[in-house]
Amino acid sequence: MKDLKEVYQTYEKLFNQEITLQGWIRNHRKQKDIGFIDFNDGTYFKGVQLIYDNNLKDFQEVQKLHIGSAITVTGILIKSLKEKQPFEIMIKTIKLEGDCPDDYPIQPKRHTREFLRSLAYLRPRTNLFSAVFRVRSIVAEAIHNYFQENNYVYVHTPLITTTDCEGSDQMFKITTFDYDNMPKDDKGLVDTSKDLFGKKTYVTGTGQLHGEAFAMAFKKIYTFGPTFRTENSNTKTHANEFWMIEPEIAFCDLNGLMNIEEEMLKYIVRDVLEKCPEEINFFDEFVEKGLKEKLTKLVNSSFVRITHHEAIDILTKANIKWEFEPNYESDIAKEHEKYITEYFNSPVFITDWPKDIKAWYMKVNEDGKTVAAVDLEVPGAGELMGGSQREENYDKLLKRIKEMNVLEEPVDWFCNLRKYGGCYHSGFGMGFERLIIYLTGVENIRDVIPFPRTPKNCDY
Amino acid sequence: MKDLKEVYQTYEKLFNQEITLQGWIRNHRKQKDIGFIDFNDGTYFKGVQLIYDNNLKDFQEVQKLHIGSAITVTGILIKSLKEKQPFEIMIKTIKLEGDCPDDYPIQPKRHTREFLRSLAYLRPRTNLFSAVFRVRSIVAEAIHNYFQENNYVYVHTPLITTTDCEGSDQMFKITTFDYDNMPKDDKGLVDTSKDLFGKKTYVTGTGQLHGEAFAMAFKKIYTFGPTFRTENSNTKTHANEFWMIEPEIAFCDLNGLMNIEEEMLKYIVRDVLEKCPEEINFFDEFVEKGLKEKLTKLVNSSFVRITHHEAIDILTKANIKWEFEPNYESDIAKEHEKYITEYFNSPVFITDWPKDIKAWYMKVNEDGKTVAAVDLEVPGAGELMGGSQREENYDKLLKRIKEMNVLEEPVDWFCNLRKYGGCYHSGFGMGFERLIIYLTGVENIRDVIPFPRTPKNCDY
Repeated sequence: MKDLKEVYQTYEKLFNQEITLQGWIRNHRKQKDIGFIDFNDGTYFKGVQLIYDNNLKDFQEVQKLHIGSAITVTGILIKSLKEKQPFEIMIKTIKLEGDCPDDYPIQPKRHTREFLRSLAYLRPRTNLFSAVFRVRSIVAEAIHNYFQENNYVYVHTPLITTTDCEGSDQMFKITTFDYDNMPKDDKGLVDTSKDLFGKKTYVTGTGQLHGEAFAMAFKKIYTFGPTFRTENSNTKTHANEFWMIEPEIAFCDLNGLMNIEEEMLKYIVRDVLEKCPEEINFFDEFVEKGLKEKLTKLVNSSFVRITHHEAIDILTKANIKWEFEPNYESDIAKEHEKYITEYFNSPVFITDWPKDIKAWYMKVNEDGKTVAAVDLEVPGAGELMGGSQREENYDKLLKRIKEMNVLEEPVDWFCNLRKYGGCYHSGFGMGFERLIIYLTGVENIRDVIPFPRTPKNCDY
Repeated sequence: MKDLKEVYQTYEKLFNQEITLQGWIRNHRKQKDIGFIDFNDGTYFKGVQLIYDNNLKDFQEVQKLHIGSAITVTGILIKSLKEKQPFEIMIKTIKLEGDCPDDYPIQPKRHTREFLRSLAYLRPRTNLFSAVFRVRSIVAEAIHNYFQENNYVYVHTPLITTTDCEGSDQMFKITTFDYDNMPKDDKGLVDTSKDLFGKKTYVTGTGQLHGEAFAMAFKKIYTFGPTFRTENSNTKTHANEFWMIEPEIAFCDLNGLMNIEEEMLKYIVRDVLEKCPEEINFFDEFVEKGLKEKLTKLVNSSFVRITHHEAIDILTKANIKWEFEPNYESDIAKEHEKYITEYFNSPVFITDWPKDIKAWYMKVNEDGKTVAAVDLEVPGAGELMGGSQREENYDKLLKRIKEMNVLEEPVDWFCNLRKYGGCYHSGFGMGFERLIIYLTGVENIRDVIPFPRTPKNCDY
């Protein structure tokens, strides 16, 4: 019993040998005395053609096999005459493991992505989603490998938290209460002290705070786990559940952080080009023309590094009527991101953002106006990573907390990290789905998550 | 700038060379004309001794450095005269990056685990927790490597779900509602149709159902992510948030599944013995005497395979007064698990359990009484993995769903997997923390999770 992937890796040694495979019928073309089955077992992007003719003793039975059925097949691996396939298999025996009726929704024809979204449990059986989710898996492994090879410790930061550091409107509450019998306190308000944890609890939107605690022990750490946002927005890039990678590095300033981000992204892209050539070619041909060139170019480029101020200079000098006027005090809009990455035709780090539009834990620069934050903008996918040097000075951090009306008590331990051998340090977050969108060209986040959760959509 | 880990890997080439390190002071012993600093940067279990004498121009300043402080140190790597340390560093310059006050709670003395539990954000700086959490990281990577090398696809199954397949008492509800203003329907009951997803939603206790859908496309898949249970029990082995690994394999029966479980566990143990010798020696000396021997033995053993019936035979024949009498129709208790693993002095697979005490999706054996389920019991940690061959027959599955009063509608898509090219398949779940407990000898789950969540305990 072999995986098709192994067969593809060693087929030259397998010619004229008997092999057994187990998988599914993707297509079945029948002629009077011969039949062709497109077979795939899911371990490799490409399938293999199985051939049988009327010398097969149960020829009639085999001709009846349905598309979608699970089979065990034994046959002889032979050289193919067609250029596109290096080998095919002449069937000796075939066993039906699981039938599939004629109304099977995944037929060998083009289905729209919208239609397939409504069949999330079947769509990984199509070429597109087989490619997307195999790439997703291999990229996850590449991320782990990059950090582990570089002595980072992988930390499972908690998902259940009482620290509502994003503002409670953006976080899901989590409870064991029966909604129709919530215990109340004296004032008639819901009494969360009676809940399992004795407190009001949320599922988290970030592992950063806990990650910092571990960076102060292990120097270099990363998280890689699910994250939640309650945003009620139906865009191509928003989901309520997604995965994030959040590295945190002690003794690292903003320049060091950019070096790491650049090195990591190149490592990932190199890895996916090497391990998923079939998938990348497929995306290049059918999803995003020029994808392969884009990725190859990235590996060999030096990312541009400009300040937010310089970015606004470029935008205001551009001869374009903006929907949102670029502004030295404000965030940049999607249209600006697009212009900047096209202007440089490269990933671009934008640093030193106005402090008022960034988070409270970022280090304020000497100008008193900007923070040592950096966003990485990539062509076609916008902001891929966001990071900053963290404020390591206890008094300055407390000042920012007060200025920005952050609740102090839940983050007192986080502030204490500055008292107990704190040091300059930096970290970033990368949305995993946004990375997959960038690497595959598949532009809707619903199509890169196995079972996406978006407003009004929690099927399966 | 080097990581201490790199220095340990290459120190023989670095003698008499100048190196720079960044990390923390673990201990500081001062004499009149000389000082010794135990230094660690967290990238390696072992630290290094820094030495300075009164030839150092800021000798007086350096003598004042506090335990816990963050420093950048440059010095000459020299051979050590002590047997326990292969090298030490003669300081040339030292820079204080972050001070630490005298009331720093992590002093170089023995702290109880209970005390350190109350300081979850600082405890990774101690030897024990540094070892535990580094091993946790390296074991996570080993698990990914095992599955990726064997052509499994890593699937991020959703955490937010409407499928309450464990019974709602065991699952957390998740909502965007303000608890004190929950919208109500005509009957005065909370109207979850007005919530973000338009339904009542939970955070999940398993990825298995979704994993099966992907196994029917990729043949071999695994999940590795956080899982939640609302159990209100304060034992050493229960937490409300923990990580699970759930592989699912198409065309795999119960024997095949046991082969995979055994191969995977040996792969992990081999990897941790190879990559974490310092940590394993530490656990062996200070946490569980004989740990190293236990693990080494496992790699070279063949796991015992017995049926539940045979296990009960052994238990009833044993000359022991049980708290719970062994019974052919019942589950086995902790005391039984312990006896069985000690009886064989080996990990033991127990198969073919009474169907009434196992889950609805397990394949009923031909006897009509038992299911093709398997638990792996390991010495010292009890049940480490639980798996089964799944019922692949649509009608039989539906019958079990009705018999066991499972809500049909939320799992109809799951049942459909049996209609559309389903095949015999199997899967198992492994609690990641239980594995870490087994590998380290640290027996309380609160001490192997970075920030544990247990009833009434959701600090940080």
